[in-house]
Amino acid sequence: MYSVDYYREAFLKHLNTAITLKEPRNLYEPIQYILQLGGKRLRPVLALIAADLFDSNYQKAMNVAIAIEVFHNFSLVHDDIMDKAPLRRGKPTVHQKWNTNIGILSGDAMLIIAYQLFETYPPEIFAQLAKLFSKTALEVCEGQQWDMDFETKTEVSVARYTQMIRYKTAVLIGAALQMGAIIAETSEKNQQYIYDFGVEIGLAFQLQDDYLDAFGDENFGKKIGGDIIENKKTILYLKALELANENQRKQLLQWYNTTEESDEKINKVKQLFKDTNAATQVREAIAQTTKNALSILEKLSISEEKVQYLKDFSLDLMERNV
Amino acid sequence: MYSVDYYREAFLKHLNTAITLKEPRNLYEPIQYILQLGGKRLRPVLALIAADLFDSNYQKAMNVAIAIEVFHNFSLVHDDIMDKAPLRRGKPTVHQKWNTNIGILSGDAMLIIAYQLFETYPPEIFAQLAKLFSKTALEVCEGQQWDMDFETKTEVSVARYTQMIRYKTAVLIGAALQMGAIIAETSEKNQQYIYDFGVEIGLAFQLQDDYLDAFGDENFGKKIGGDIIENKKTILYLKALELANENQRKQLLQWYNTTEESDEKINKVKQLFKDTNAATQVREAIAQTTKNALSILEKLSISEEKVQYLKDFSLDLMERNV
Repeated sequence: MYSVDYYREAFLKHLNTAITLKEPRNLYEPIQYILQLGGKRLRPVLALIAADLFDSNYQKAMNVAIAIEVFHNFSLVHDDIMDKAPLRRGKPTVHQKWNTNIGILSGDAMLIIAYQLFETYPPEIFAQLAKLFSKTALEVCEGQQWDMDFETKTEVSVARYTQMIRYKTAVLIGAALQMGAIIAETSEKNQQYIYDFGVEIGLAFQLQDDYLDAFGDENFGKKIGGDIIENKKTILYLKALELANENQRKQLLQWYNTTEESDEKINKVKQLFKDTNAATQVREAIAQTTKNALSILEKLSISEEKVQYLKDFSLDLMERNV
Repeated sequence: MYSVDYYREAFLKHLNTAITLKEPRNLYEPIQYILQLGGKRLRPVLALIAADLFDSNYQKAMNVAIAIEVFHNFSLVHDDIMDKAPLRRGKPTVHQKWNTNIGILSGDAMLIIAYQLFETYPPEIFAQLAKLFSKTALEVCEGQQWDMDFETKTEVSVARYTQMIRYKTAVLIGAALQMGAIIAETSEKNQQYIYDFGVEIGLAFQLQDDYLDAFGDENFGKKIGGDIIENKKTILYLKALELANENQRKQLLQWYNTTEESDEKINKVKQLFKDTNAATQVREAIAQTTKNALSILEKLSISEEKVQYLKDFSLDLMERNV
């Protein structure tokens, strides 16, 4: 096994040569653009790691890694249109830099290109990859639709919110790992376990993302309280609503009914998250989900060293060092 | 071989049961809606015909037929957003009936569902289908991008316009036929010929669509001259620009610079199409393309009766009886 940085570098080297600029420029330039915007490259790195984990060679999983990153970026391009987001990683989004039509169409092309990247594998492997990929991609669409549906609802249960997160982001983490496992032609059991691990750790990661937006370290990068200012229905908000007494509930709904951008709003809402016990319960849920993820690793038929590698990776991820 | 109507009925019966309504409703309802809007169902019917043509059973090609229709409708949903079209087959478009975000997302889901429909075939066949499908789908995107690029250009060569049409619409006709041929496990040569035939007849059909918009029979359905009113750069317009003398060119550009919706505009522009000889040359090009398509049929290793079936089909199609 190599370091995460090593896998990332190998991936980036390959990414630069994988997507060539073709005609029509307006279709392919946005694809190159979004793929070069950066990011942690977590999903493709996981695909490479999984291949090595099950005694294959990470280089064999390279096209799978690219496919996953291309798909992930397809979803970002289309989501940014839906969210009317002007920026992505501090740079103009595709629909902002070009236009909405080009965003839609180059996104469509990326989804197709992701499938094409599986074509280098033999038919049996190709079929397995494409099948898992389609199932996952459709779940990501369903998650995005739930997310949009939730925006117009005052209240969403924590269970349904968690399910939305699972579909919108966690299943792709699981699929990335399983695809590496498919390339390595490991047992179906190993495939299932590594997928389950990925989904659980992805879920924990995403829930923590919600948590850190309110209770993270300012130095961590993002401005604290952004979700509160945008009245985003995060796990903290939904949990708080479930736990709140009548008075707390009234206050929370009131704050989420303003477009105020004050520190007072952030502080008052955070206090409500604490007072309702939502902050603690969410923190505990994240810890439990992480524990669940790690316990699945024990079932894998791989060496102790490799299990430890994945545990270290997971803990680094949850402490945001990856 | 059965009648075209027979294949269409068989397809429609299957279509009704193939796409089930699942949660989230806002993702799957638009898919059912657009698939039920009707249409000639030309592409899926061709896939079924091709399977029978090469001595398989059309029922084996049913999922391929559905996949092609789902993909075709995906492209309609996204194109309608890009064109800001309020109506499709006389009914509200998906983005009009729901909203643009739902149009984008349910379109994405349709593209994925199309791939999933290939999963019922064995891996070797699955891989062949998915590969041809991806190549074709990407070409359709490229064609759509060329089409959008051309809108902002004053002049486009007839050759590039034809290439755009080939990608945007003709290759899918070829792919529909080849997919039926893949299911039938016929020779690669037969596959290539039936694909080539499909692309040529698809091209002839689309060019004729341009021609009939100006010179068709009013009874045929569409209002005559719609493209002229919308200043659409059709094959007639581009050919006329290539052939026009200085005076004719000036007049044509002037008419295409107005948003006038008069019969005078239609008549004057049609006269220019005739005077420049564009009308005749386009008619000849359509006839030649149709002839090319039919001549490819002679190369197929199938019975004379089946060749005749395809010829009759093609001529019916070009006379719009299919």
